[in-house]
Amino acid sequence: MGARKVSSDEYLFDPDLLKNLDWGSVINCLNPPITNETPGEPWLLVRPLCISDYNKGYVQILSQLTTVGNVSKTDFERQFMNMRKAGGYYITVIEDTRINRIIGASSLITEFKIIHNCGIRGRLEDVVVNNTYRGKQLGKLIVLTVSLLAKKLGCYKMSLDCKDSLIPFYKSIGYKLEPGNANSMITRYEETSKPVDPS
Amino acid sequence: MGARKVSSDEYLFDPDLLKNLDWGSVINCLNPPITNETPGEPWLLVRPLCISDYNKGYVQILSQLTTVGNVSKTDFERQFMNMRKAGGYYITVIEDTRINRIIGASSLITEFKIIHNCGIRGRLEDVVVNNTYRGKQLGKLIVLTVSLLAKKLGCYKMSLDCKDSLIPFYKSIGYKLEPGNANSMITRYEETSKPVDPS
Ligand SMILES: CC(C)(COP(=O)(O)OP(=O)(O)OC[C@H]1O[C@@H](n2cnc3c(N)ncnc32)[C@H](O)[C@@H]1OP(=O)(O)O)[C@@H](O)C(=O)NCCC(=O)NCCS
Ligand SMILES: CC(C)(COP(=O)(O)OP(=O)(O)OC[C@H]1O[C@@H](n2cnc3c(N)ncnc32)[C@H](O)[C@@H]1OP(=O)(O)O)[C@@H](O)C(=O)NCCC(=O)NCCS
Repeated sequence: MGARKVSSDEYLFDPDLLKNLDWGSVINCLNPPITNETPGEPWLLVRPLCISDYNKGYVQILSQLTTVGNVSKTDFERQFMNMRKAGGYYITVIEDTRINRIIGASSLITEFKIIHNCGIRGRLEDVVVNNTYRGKQLGKLIVLTVSLLAKKLGCYKMSLDCKDSLIPFYKSIGYKLEPGNANSMITRYEETSKPVDPS
Repeated sequence: MGARKVSSDEYLFDPDLLKNLDWGSVINCLNPPITNETPGEPWLLVRPLCISDYNKGYVQILSQLTTVGNVSKTDFERQFMNMRKAGGYYITVIEDTRINRIIGASSLITEFKIIHNCGIRGRLEDVVVNNTYRGKQLGKLIVLTVSLLAKKLGCYKMSLDCKDSLIPFYKSIGYKLEPGNANSMITRYEETSKPVDPS
């Protein structure tokens, strides 16, 4: 692995989409001002998820966020291909290239709508920074990166669900609780049932 | 239009998926107990969205929910095809077949995950019942229909965002606000920007 080049068909989405994001619009959120193209340290690389990132610890880092379960390399690769085929999955990672490990990640998922002039909306999902790398603005960086990508793709809004304790974090980078309209409700189903293959 | 048969490639998703949903699990939510296959009146039909539903008022009914804008027939058909190509879009409608009009609608959108054993999660979106048909359990019916579909497809959870005033409605059909983890936050972008074609 190491310094080997990643061929472009390994990416979940076109890496060029991460170029020239509108960092000027969020200049007050980061101090010192880092961006996905200049993340503060020369060994940090912000890029789309790659199918080879199973080996770089993408699945392991998600376990700092929630239940992951036993995801084999084959499971991961199958789901990666499902995502790439469907489109609309923009999972973005931060790699520490000194050790070839994923140390942060965040997902933008887009949804086609009929409302809002057949618009597109974005959702923020699965945000995590490896615990030994926290408190260095990398959380803000990775969330802002996919938020600016949502803007670039033409989303009319981006939304996220979160715990009470994370409200200040998301407020600090421009997310709001809309008065009277900020409830997230859920129903959980048993996880034993095997998903029906959607194809 | 009228009683003309709909050819199966007009549907957004396979109509057979709506057969034999697990209504037994939500028997206490509806009184009298109606289901998507027996919606209470012989002229009501619960089915997947069709590409021809532009003519039956699907876009108009959404304007009772939020801003729709000027969606032409071509815009609608293009977005319908985007959804069908991507997969994971289960927009379900209620038609009053006496007048060939859509009088209720609700969307399940599924998302591939790496977490939860490469699971699938569902989201409830764009729920509406025509104002002259409200208060007859059709809101509950259309939401439960797509929720039971999510369960059948193997989703580990289904979530929705809503206004405070609708919390009792969703509670009555099994949705919960998880303590400390029920916040929905958003950032809005200007709607002038034209979406980048995702293909
Ligand atoms: C949330 C998370 C991604 C933040 O990563 P990070 O790299 O430490 O974030 P940053 O360094 O950019 O922190 C930005 C600010 O948010 C605050 N913050 C970070 N994590 C926080 C938390 N869990 N609770 C409250 N505040 C938090 C920091 O104190 C910092 O504030 P400051 O700039 O005023 O000092 C990280 O804590 C994490 O991975 N947590 C576990 C997974 C998780 O909960 N994900 C979010 C699911 S919605
Ligand atoms: C929400 C909506 C779909 C409900 O449709 P409906 O067919 O009237 O719903 P039902 O007849 O199944 O009503 C079920 C229950 O919810 C209650 N309810 C319905 N709409 C409600 C509302 N807007 N606020 C509070 N309670 C409501 C009803 O009183 C009824 O309670 P009951 O069974 O104890 O008498 C409909 O009001 C609507 O289309 N509203 C506008 C669009 C909207 O807000 N959609 C939801 C976005 S999250």
